[in-house]
Amino acid sequence: MKDPQNIAVIGVSGYTGFELAKILLRHPEVKSLTFYVREPQGAHCLTELFPQLRGWGQAPVRTVSVEAIARSEAGTAFLATPHEVSAEMAPQLLDAGLRVVDLSGAFRFRNAETFRRWYKLPTPHAARLSDAVYGLPEFYAQQIAGARLIANPGCYATSVILAVRPLADAGWIASRSSVVCDCKSGATGAGKELRRDLQFAELDENFKAYSLFSHRHTPEITEHTGLPESQVVFSTHLLPLARGILSTIYVTLGEPQSAESVESLFRKTYAGRPMIRIWKAGTLPELQHVAHTNFADIGFALDSSGRRLVIVSCLDNLGKGAAGQAVQNFNHLLGVEEQTGLQ
Amino acid sequence: MKDPQNIAVIGVSGYTGFELAKILLRHPEVKSLTFYVREPQGAHCLTELFPQLRGWGQAPVRTVSVEAIARSEAGTAFLATPHEVSAEMAPQLLDAGLRVVDLSGAFRFRNAETFRRWYKLPTPHAARLSDAVYGLPEFYAQQIAGARLIANPGCYATSVILAVRPLADAGWIASRSSVVCDCKSGATGAGKELRRDLQFAELDENFKAYSLFSHRHTPEITEHTGLPESQVVFSTHLLPLARGILSTIYVTLGEPQSAESVESLFRKTYAGRPMIRIWKAGTLPELQHVAHTNFADIGFALDSSGRRLVIVSCLDNLGKGAAGQAVQNFNHLLGVEEQTGLQ
Amino acid sequence: MKDPQNIAVIGVSGYTGFELAKILLRHPEVKSLTFYVREPQGAHCLTELFPQLRGWGQAPVRTVSVEAIARSEAGTAFLATPHEVSAEMAPQLLDAGLRVVDLSGAFRFRNAETFRRWYKLPTPHAARLSDAVYGLPEFYAQQIAGARLIANPGCYATSVILAVRPLADAGWIASRSSVVCDCKSGATGAGKELRRDLQFAELDENFKAYSLFSHRHTPEITEHTGLPESQVVFSTHLLPLARGILSTIYVTLGEPQSAESVESLFRKTYAGRPMIRIWKAGTLPELQHVAHTNFADIGFALDSSGRRLVIVSCLDNLGKGAAGQAVQNFNHLLGVEEQTGLQ
Amino acid sequence: MKDPQNIAVIGVSGYTGFELAKILLRHPEVKSLTFYVREPQGAHCLTELFPQLRGWGQAPVRTVSVEAIARSEAGTAFLATPHEVSAEMAPQLLDAGLRVVDLSGAFRFRNAETFRRWYKLPTPHAARLSDAVYGLPEFYAQQIAGARLIANPGCYATSVILAVRPLADAGWIASRSSVVCDCKSGATGAGKELRRDLQFAELDENFKAYSLFSHRHTPEITEHTGLPESQVVFSTHLLPLARGILSTIYVTLGEPQSAESVESLFRKTYAGRPMIRIWKAGTLPELQHVAHTNFADIGFALDSSGRRLVIVSCLDNLGKGAAGQAVQNFNHLLGVEEQTGLQ
Repeated sequence: MKDPQNIAVIGVSGYTGFELAKILLRHPEVKSLTFYVREPQGAHCLTELFPQLRGWGQAPVRTVSVEAIARSEAGTAFLATPHEVSAEMAPQLLDAGLRVVDLSGAFRFRNAETFRRWYKLPTPHAARLSDAVYGLPEFYAQQIAGARLIANPGCYATSVILAVRPLADAGWIASRSSVVCDCKSGATGAGKELRRDLQFAELDENFKAYSLFSHRHTPEITEHTGLPESQVVFSTHLLPLARGILSTIYVTLGEPQSAESVESLFRKTYAGRPMIRIWKAGTLPELQHVAHTNFADIGFALDSSGRRLVIVSCLDNLGKGAAGQAVQNFNHLLGVEEQTGLQ
Repeated sequence: MKDPQNIAVIGVSGYTGFELAKILLRHPEVKSLTFYVREPQGAHCLTELFPQLRGWGQAPVRTVSVEAIARSEAGTAFLATPHEVSAEMAPQLLDAGLRVVDLSGAFRFRNAETFRRWYKLPTPHAARLSDAVYGLPEFYAQQIAGARLIANPGCYATSVILAVRPLADAGWIASRSSVVCDCKSGATGAGKELRRDLQFAELDENFKAYSLFSHRHTPEITEHTGLPESQVVFSTHLLPLARGILSTIYVTLGEPQSAESVESLFRKTYAGRPMIRIWKAGTLPELQHVAHTNFADIGFALDSSGRRLVIVSCLDNLGKGAAGQAVQNFNHLLGVEEQTGLQ
Repeated sequence: MKDPQNIAVIGVSGYTGFELAKILLRHPEVKSLTFYVREPQGAHCLTELFPQLRGWGQAPVRTVSVEAIARSEAGTAFLATPHEVSAEMAPQLLDAGLRVVDLSGAFRFRNAETFRRWYKLPTPHAARLSDAVYGLPEFYAQQIAGARLIANPGCYATSVILAVRPLADAGWIASRSSVVCDCKSGATGAGKELRRDLQFAELDENFKAYSLFSHRHTPEITEHTGLPESQVVFSTHLLPLARGILSTIYVTLGEPQSAESVESLFRKTYAGRPMIRIWKAGTLPELQHVAHTNFADIGFALDSSGRRLVIVSCLDNLGKGAAGQAVQNFNHLLGVEEQTGLQ
Repeated sequence: MKDPQNIAVIGVSGYTGFELAKILLRHPEVKSLTFYVREPQGAHCLTELFPQLRGWGQAPVRTVSVEAIARSEAGTAFLATPHEVSAEMAPQLLDAGLRVVDLSGAFRFRNAETFRRWYKLPTPHAARLSDAVYGLPEFYAQQIAGARLIANPGCYATSVILAVRPLADAGWIASRSSVVCDCKSGATGAGKELRRDLQFAELDENFKAYSLFSHRHTPEITEHTGLPESQVVFSTHLLPLARGILSTIYVTLGEPQSAESVESLFRKTYAGRPMIRIWKAGTLPELQHVAHTNFADIGFALDSSGRRLVIVSCLDNLGKGAAGQAVQNFNHLLGVEEQTGLQ
């Protein structure tokens, strides 16, 4: 069997791929690392593509080719590719005997129809969806360890699910009450595509909501919190900063609770989970606390009635929201401590 | 009677006072303008205090003294002062025959107890509270025109009330449903006090929630939307930008509505109100659209059920949220068009 | 003759054109205003293109056509177009009897070879270069008043020439000493083209030099200060902010001077020039002082030897550096006060 | 003798001290680590002071006391304290047998008069100045390895000296020509003091020069490049970003050089120096390339005459400009690789 410590990364030109490169170049359990890109532009190694990586480490760069990857020593492939590329390539790499960590949305849903409805894209290998494990290790560590295909969660979805699921699992959310998830993300979360609204002069000193009632991370949230779509209102905003997601989440509790019991519920859920940090009742995390880390921080405020709860959930969209979480999943594949290479 | 076109501005060192100065220096209906500050630091005119105002206009600067203002020709006083200073000084200026536009929170509530509860400050002249008119001209233009004391609204409160009140007045909000107001403000909204969390390095690339369930603008929102406190969840966040508030407001409607009917309700409410701009269904305003203006922009999205409504309400916290609105109120006092000097 | 108060603006989609629109919509001497764009996208008026301009004023939008402009009542054309478009269109509009204010670089040089060398573009109407007047009204007001074609200066060039020329004219600069012009600009100065390095995530928290020894504004600086190219070192940098240029300029004086005499030289040069503000010796202007204005601010520091002078020159690249200066030139055409519509 | 791998850090509340904490908490050669602060505010460990450090590591916090440090196992003290505190405390710690890495300016000059002149502070222990080694390891590695007191360089000084000294040592700088050092720093370089001009709303969208001809890093530059003060013009500016210094340095060469020879000079000087990265002729480093690292990046442009050279030198003011460099010096003390714990 192929050694999973030999790694192929497909796609390094986007923000997520670049972050993945920086983490994996220094990961102590990586034996070999090769990058595959669509157009190497004459580059043979990573620092020819990114001179600012000199001193970080070195790795070869090659033109993407499933055949070449299949023939190589690589045992794990990270796909930092568009949804449609991942949809096509992941099954081929699985067939070639690799394990795959896919950072796109292509394999996040059991139901092919969900993907088609929200992504407006075909699902060429729908039969493979059931092979995939949703890569949220705080809830699915065991399945991830044995998986061949890991669907790395969406950044917003990670931020919301980590905050809401403990309450949903405990049955604390008032039935039929709306769970409002007001989420704000930095610009790298929107990707590296050349878009007018991502130009500096358009986003600087600006703030805006987007994709109301239509954001693709919605079905991940409902599927992994167990809440019906009618109960979740999920909105997204673009912040004038580079990295980080802060979600403010409004929950009505069925029964009044004390701040202590809320804090205790979060602490119990995430006991032994080093990447989740619970803030003491009365204190709240901020984006700066998690930027450039793989932590997800959770704090909350409870009103005097004990029934209206506001949760603040923060993470770095490129860290715990994407590349960091992908490596955390990889660590579970290897069976090493989940924070390995992430501090 | 004193001529209201002769103006005394008390306090110009904060962001609101400075903005007020810039607007009033170019206001066509101002006959005379004098600034009063606690410590003139040897300055006799405004450009000695603020050399960057050279070329904008000129005005004398004097040490604050109610007696001096009372003896002067001033007929209108703008108070850009802390709550406790306004609480003390406004009644004295009223007694001296001036009209007062107060930008603090001191006179925003009919009930002295509300002020004490939320501001933790005494209300030395509680008897004068009933003299005050809440200065939101889109709803109280007539009372403002005849008022002697105008309590200029809070910036967040303005942003929320303008968005929610049309729905509340129409009886569209599902009874007992939560109205979630998730509000985000630029740094000038927090004032000019030297605070650690307002230092550049602390706020840059940062974003955070604050004052959950305890923000002082809460009672303005409940009083002027008519919603009970138990139905309003109001949260505030600090954005890494200088100017602007964007409020994302989540409302559950009692009966399903079409996007057209929602848009139409807003358009009808604000017909003839030049400072309010309604965005077409399917489009949303952004902070850049209102920064450095006196506009409040309102847009929305409605889900397919027609019952879940997200409203996006934007304004410049120093414009329509403070100094601009104060001048809009002043225009009503004078009986001139409400946008005079505000474009 | 055509009335110059009837205006055609060609190009409104870039940052400069948009700024021009905002200024001209409120200019008291404009009788009529029509915008011409390459692709109106079905829009018939400006607020259909830019809903955020509702409340600012209104103007028709048409597809660009020299013939249509020639047939219209327009007497003045503003060209906010790329160099090559201006090079082609300005002579045609002149032939049609309009006066032209061109904001591109196409007509800034007397010598066609200079344009070819620095812009790497052909000069289709080289014979018309001598018709053009360089639109820096602080030095060429008289020629501008009578000009048919005004070449509006580059933003960096304006900032440097205003600071250096008084010293050059006075013969104070040590012969053969380098005049180092270290200039920094906000992102709107680089235009609205979709470029990777202008994406938010690339420029945010970043700062960089670019175009060393090759920036196109170099020949404007040498031509209008009279300094030989060998004596000028001009460098440009990109700031993580939207608007403004700050130039730090290092001059060695031939003879020692006092701070008073330096300040006095600047004050005398710009006496009666309302858009230039000289800062007192020992104080320095900052970008915030000029952002969103048409002012150019100049301050300096002199070392104890009296021979090493550092000048700080600030302006808004869209104001005095582009659209504002274009309107200032237009005011000279009309014979009204040069700050009309610019405050 | 005390073991230098047991560490006392004095001062952790400023940006430099905090960065030092983050580096040392993960440094593989640190055996023990204790933090000393003036007012522990009831905290006994670092994460009580800074909850955002949970998961980074842990260390005790104590009230500063030279006696307690002297009695402890600590063999190395890092002083992240104000100049006057370092001036007082460093000699006491040396007397107690510790090695000291001082991040203030107190021991950067051989000549007590230089410190008094530029810092306007007394030098209580002037006799100890000659004990100190200037902690720029690229030039003084050998002396640092054997030093008892290391004066960690200023951030601007590091950026300038690394760029200029190779040329000065090679005798390439034209005699009597000015070397203009136009330096720009992020806000953390100005420290964490509560100052009006460091408030977010004052610095956001702003840029300004400060301390012209009077910045305290000037004498470090002249002393360690060997250039006379009359030949160096050093200016400093504040950038609207958190971390990083970019210096643009203008040098006139005595003899014309090719770009290859300039690049080669830099490469030879820094061969075997892992923290210095030379950029190929024709490419330039940017602040983002060095932020959050200990690298100093150097690039340049040479004009066609081969005599006018512009060097761009970048580093992170908290990394190579302060805390990172302090740890690099500490690594030399220990005799381990100089990049240990810095990647």
